[in-house]
Amino acid sequence: MTEPRLAAKLGAEFLGTFWLVFGGCGSAVLAAMFLSADPGTNTQVQLGIGFVGVALAFGLTVLTGAYAFGHVSGGHFNPAVTIGLAIAKRFEWRGVLPYIVTQIVAASFAGLVLFIVAAGKDGFNAVESGFATNGFGDRSPGGYSLLAALIIEVVLTAVFLYIILGATDDRAPKGFAPIAIGLGLTLIHLVSIPVTNTSVNPARSLGVAWFAGGAALSQVWLFIVAPIIGAAIAGFTYALITGANATPVDEGVANNP
Amino acid sequence: MTEPRLAAKLGAEFLGTFWLVFGGCGSAVLAAMFLSADPGTNTQVQLGIGFVGVALAFGLTVLTGAYAFGHVSGGHFNPAVTIGLAIAKRFEWRGVLPYIVTQIVAASFAGLVLFIVAAGKDGFNAVESGFATNGFGDRSPGGYSLLAALIIEVVLTAVFLYIILGATDDRAPKGFAPIAIGLGLTLIHLVSIPVTNTSVNPARSLGVAWFAGGAALSQVWLFIVAPIIGAAIAGFTYALITGANATPVDEGVANNP
Amino acid sequence: MTEPRLAAKLGAEFLGTFWLVFGGCGSAVLAAMFLSADPGTNTQVQLGIGFVGVALAFGLTVLTGAYAFGHVSGGHFNPAVTIGLAIAKRFEWRGVLPYIVTQIVAASFAGLVLFIVAAGKDGFNAVESGFATNGFGDRSPGGYSLLAALIIEVVLTAVFLYIILGATDDRAPKGFAPIAIGLGLTLIHLVSIPVTNTSVNPARSLGVAWFAGGAALSQVWLFIVAPIIGAAIAGFTYALITGANATPVDEGVANNP
Amino acid sequence: MTEPRLAAKLGAEFLGTFWLVFGGCGSAVLAAMFLSADPGTNTQVQLGIGFVGVALAFGLTVLTGAYAFGHVSGGHFNPAVTIGLAIAKRFEWRGVLPYIVTQIVAASFAGLVLFIVAAGKDGFNAVESGFATNGFGDRSPGGYSLLAALIIEVVLTAVFLYIILGATDDRAPKGFAPIAIGLGLTLIHLVSIPVTNTSVNPARSLGVAWFAGGAALSQVWLFIVAPIIGAAIAGFTYALITGANATPVDEGVANNP
Repeated sequence: MTEPRLAAKLGAEFLGTFWLVFGGCGSAVLAAMFLSADPGTNTQVQLGIGFVGVALAFGLTVLTGAYAFGHVSGGHFNPAVTIGLAIAKRFEWRGVLPYIVTQIVAASFAGLVLFIVAAGKDGFNAVESGFATNGFGDRSPGGYSLLAALIIEVVLTAVFLYIILGATDDRAPKGFAPIAIGLGLTLIHLVSIPVTNTSVNPARSLGVAWFAGGAALSQVWLFIVAPIIGAAIAGFTYALITGANATPVDEGVANNP
Repeated sequence: MTEPRLAAKLGAEFLGTFWLVFGGCGSAVLAAMFLSADPGTNTQVQLGIGFVGVALAFGLTVLTGAYAFGHVSGGHFNPAVTIGLAIAKRFEWRGVLPYIVTQIVAASFAGLVLFIVAAGKDGFNAVESGFATNGFGDRSPGGYSLLAALIIEVVLTAVFLYIILGATDDRAPKGFAPIAIGLGLTLIHLVSIPVTNTSVNPARSLGVAWFAGGAALSQVWLFIVAPIIGAAIAGFTYALITGANATPVDEGVANNP
Repeated sequence: MTEPRLAAKLGAEFLGTFWLVFGGCGSAVLAAMFLSADPGTNTQVQLGIGFVGVALAFGLTVLTGAYAFGHVSGGHFNPAVTIGLAIAKRFEWRGVLPYIVTQIVAASFAGLVLFIVAAGKDGFNAVESGFATNGFGDRSPGGYSLLAALIIEVVLTAVFLYIILGATDDRAPKGFAPIAIGLGLTLIHLVSIPVTNTSVNPARSLGVAWFAGGAALSQVWLFIVAPIIGAAIAGFTYALITGANATPVDEGVANNP
Repeated sequence: MTEPRLAAKLGAEFLGTFWLVFGGCGSAVLAAMFLSADPGTNTQVQLGIGFVGVALAFGLTVLTGAYAFGHVSGGHFNPAVTIGLAIAKRFEWRGVLPYIVTQIVAASFAGLVLFIVAAGKDGFNAVESGFATNGFGDRSPGGYSLLAALIIEVVLTAVFLYIILGATDDRAPKGFAPIAIGLGLTLIHLVSIPVTNTSVNPARSLGVAWFAGGAALSQVWLFIVAPIIGAAIAGFTYALITGANATPVDEGVANNP
């Protein structure tokens, strides 16, 4: 099989990262809370998808994107993943910058399209609603401190990279990596939405922060720094801990058909 | 392996599209909201499946249908998918009309059986309840505008086709496409039920609209036009963006055993 | 590979059917509704799994049971499945009676163990709570008529068998059948819990009916008759509709490693 | 393929067991209940993940951990699993003690990290909140008796081991075991959270009990004894019931790539 050209890889990363932000943040903005009155008792009933639905949505963006585009680009969709894979010698360093730029552009474009759709409902306000941005302290959904936010983003991104590195290891069963990685992201959201609204992905954080005002942007640094630290820890230690051999460069997330 | 005859393919499309509408719309009509009084506190508790359950149901109709019937017909179950695959040269144009007619007949038959079952509960009224039809403006579950509805249906159908084309690409791992495609449809519903009640499928929209009165029928055009536009965009651009080679015609959704 | 002996097959059917009833009905009896007071506002919050969780539980009993025991017995766990497979010439008629007797004994034993566990909570009453039994009319969760109950049980069991027959067809991708079949059962529950509490399985219906009083037992006939009719329709028509060749006898649900 | 060294295996067990406790118990402690006021009606709405989300989280820790690390260590992450596999002659006895010590250390470290994160929210109290510990009687979420707790933990651990032994049997389809085993653990939680908060894993029970006070520690014996009894029953009887041949030692949970 011939290696796809860089343009094709960046095209695949664009589509996959757009999907991650539009699908994941879109589910949070449009569908997390939805009340409807029961015709009989007139009770207000929550039909919205809640944090379980948002967690499922984020994970499924990666599961579907990795099956659809992983064979082209490796299916990173996340600057922290790209950096972690490069550190672990699974991805070439010369691809890191073009991948990250593409991911941030795609995430921001997804944020824009989502903003236009959300504005199609009367009374929508991106700043007040939060627009699915990440935060800590008074911008944490559950009021968690900066320290708690930092720890959980580092830990969860590290585990995310261990899952990615392990599930695409030569020794792992072939073809299943997108299931493990996608549902791993679902699990990460099940744990941490109340703490930070869950980033583990700087592009996802930036893509919506532009639209949610200065307070959101003033905290976005944490969701760039912490995921990269976590990914680097995993990238440096995976082979040591699990006894993996160095595997050839450029294998990517889902590239084991 | 010999190619199945057209009659078998249409039989498989009939069963799969019936299942998509009966299972997906059935879960919405029969089970989305279900209140029950807690014996202790007499609080009304929502036991119904909400939008998460409906999203899961629609996706699982395609996941199960594609594993069960995809090897016969390609598992389209959706006129927009059939058209998008034809544009992408993955399906022969001469099959398009018979497929679409079969899909619409099957969807409408599913709407009829669902109507009969739903009418087995006192007080059921298809027009008042909406009967799982799609809509915008005052018929949008969350009151979203025509423009928002148009954009989200085009975008989500385009991504749905990218997932289908990518997951059945020669380079993708074999056998997993129905998981990616089915759970992709779940994700699409997690995002967009509040906006349009989610179509991305003209047959699904028509199949229930017959039973829900003139207002439902007067808006159904959007859910024919927008999904086809989205599918066409993906069909024309998939190979360009991802660098895929033209693959032989008639491969279909799940036909990679 | 040598064919397992009948004793091993019946052992596998016993374990799998026990699991289906203990896991599926257990989730409904023990966990569907669970209120807890929020410490801050003292609001009663539903933490229980609702119909989505029960639907997931039933499906996962079959998904897990088919991967664990399908290679031994074919993974039927359901008299309607056994009969439908025999009609479709996928299972030998001489195995039908021993399979069905085993399934009913295992289901009833699961009902007994569940009864003992449930009685470990003060105030438990199997008759009043319904004990996850199936019903129609005044015993339908949503008050659906006998006709609606009959139609939906016939239709859903027929589709269940189409999924089983299609996903284990020689032409289907190998190894995925338990996912399609298990999640197909989840989908069936997402649609029909409000109508009949969902049977599609006479053993599941009988296994709990013994413990829930005369009214439950007086309606159990429908949940023996309707699933068998549905399974027979699919068994007779699958090959005709999809153009499948006759496949060798005794292949079973998940027997395609 | 050469056999990984013991250090790599213990590294993999450490990561996987850390993930099981941090992800599973973390979802319960941080995200199970989360109320938010609807801006329109001011109704308090539950957005938290409830028992369905916690059940999904526990299962996905094992699904992801088994794909990521199963090829190194077998993916036990649970002393009862290690003992059950040894009894069934699927794992060497000399590995049992190092595995169990590693699992308990990793689980306790996960409890500590979770404790630090949870303490980042004002008003957190591990003893009052229960900190996701297991219990019976007055410490059972639903008030279930010791007998009910004992029975359900024995039965569910036994079935868990049957699923593990069956899904990794030579006759089972390859590569799917982590899906069956992970979703099996989800199912176990769907059934039994109200009874005992679900253990089936002594390391998971110990890992959080240290932080939740004397009452939690005084009941932890049951969640060491009952899972081991259940695992032993399955380990001794699996081959007998299903007619499996003895399979070579050291195959582990997911080691069938």
